[in-house]
Amino acid sequence: MKRSLGAKSLVYPTPVFVIGSYDEKGEPNVMTAAWAGICCSMPPAIGVSLRKATYTYGNIMRRKAFTVNVPSEDMVVQADYFGMTTGREEDKFGAVGFTSVRSDLVDAPYVKECSMVLECKLMQAVEIGLHTQFIGEIMDVKVEEDALDKEGVGIMSKVRPFIYCPDDHNYYRIGERIARGFDAGKTVERKKRKA
Amino acid sequence: MKRSLGAKSLVYPTPVFVIGSYDEKGEPNVMTAAWAGICCSMPPAIGVSLRKATYTYGNIMRRKAFTVNVPSEDMVVQADYFGMTTGREEDKFGAVGFTSVRSDLVDAPYVKECSMVLECKLMQAVEIGLHTQFIGEIMDVKVEEDALDKEGVGIMSKVRPFIYCPDDHNYYRIGERIARGFDAGKTVERKKRKA
Repeated sequence: MKRSLGAKSLVYPTPVFVIGSYDEKGEPNVMTAAWAGICCSMPPAIGVSLRKATYTYGNIMRRKAFTVNVPSEDMVVQADYFGMTTGREEDKFGAVGFTSVRSDLVDAPYVKECSMVLECKLMQAVEIGLHTQFIGEIMDVKVEEDALDKEGVGIMSKVRPFIYCPDDHNYYRIGERIARGFDAGKTVERKKRKA
Repeated sequence: MKRSLGAKSLVYPTPVFVIGSYDEKGEPNVMTAAWAGICCSMPPAIGVSLRKATYTYGNIMRRKAFTVNVPSEDMVVQADYFGMTTGREEDKFGAVGFTSVRSDLVDAPYVKECSMVLECKLMQAVEIGLHTQFIGEIMDVKVEEDALDKEGVGIMSKVRPFIYCPDDHNYYRIGERIARGFDAGKTVERKKRKA
């Protein structure tokens, strides 16, 4: 039996991304976002929803660019901190000892310490309500060499992203591989053929 | 040292959602989507990106509604299957023995077997490129009673969602809780005060 929880912004799971941008003075800033996800394959694009009240909102509107940085498990304290404070009042990179790197491709900084970073050019700003969704074209994905296999495919257990639960407000790690995509489902086909 | 992987739709992690809709004849259909995520808190909204070629695309355009169903780990085979086949050619609910339930709130069916379902009314269809992003207002979130704690908060280990890795094409389970949101970051504040 299902219980109705009402109209709320809740789904399992949501990602934890650190959004990088430059402010008016050219200072790098970061904030944490969970209302985000890939939204197109061609051009490759990612949507990140932010409130107008955030410092990053103005930064992206002016610079038309942002980065999406994937923090690893051991950065959960820093990622949480980036979501609790505002770049209006402090240098968040400095506060946690992280290093900002100027992107060659877009007018935004990425986080050196994150093993996966996406450099994005603003394509659209979609007004939804409290949140504006910034749709960014992904100009490049950069991954640390030691988090890539021989074929250049990322290794989940090296990148070690984590997820956020909007209901209990906890962060959870990613666990074991459970199945292969576009493959596990074939057992349904096989059963149908047998039936 | 980071390696450039080029412009691609890649980030860790992406969710695995099963999207429910009715076709022209009123038959329920499901497909799997990973290009999706919450995109607004007020009104609560979720974005789901689909290619025009999908059967679900036409369904949502006509009915202006869809559901987002969160499959649990033990449904990875069915969820993968829903992403491999098209509702044009078969009854996917029937193929895996799942049950469609007519929503009272929106013109779309949800999956009885999924412990968390969102009923959504189409707010906007955002043209991005190969994918169109359907932004749905979340009219209700329904969760199985036994996946809720006494306060009505969802229990991650009962819902047991899983994630997709767009790079190695594998599904991974969610692991242990690693920290509390809006709390873990306080240690940075404490360190700063000491310094």
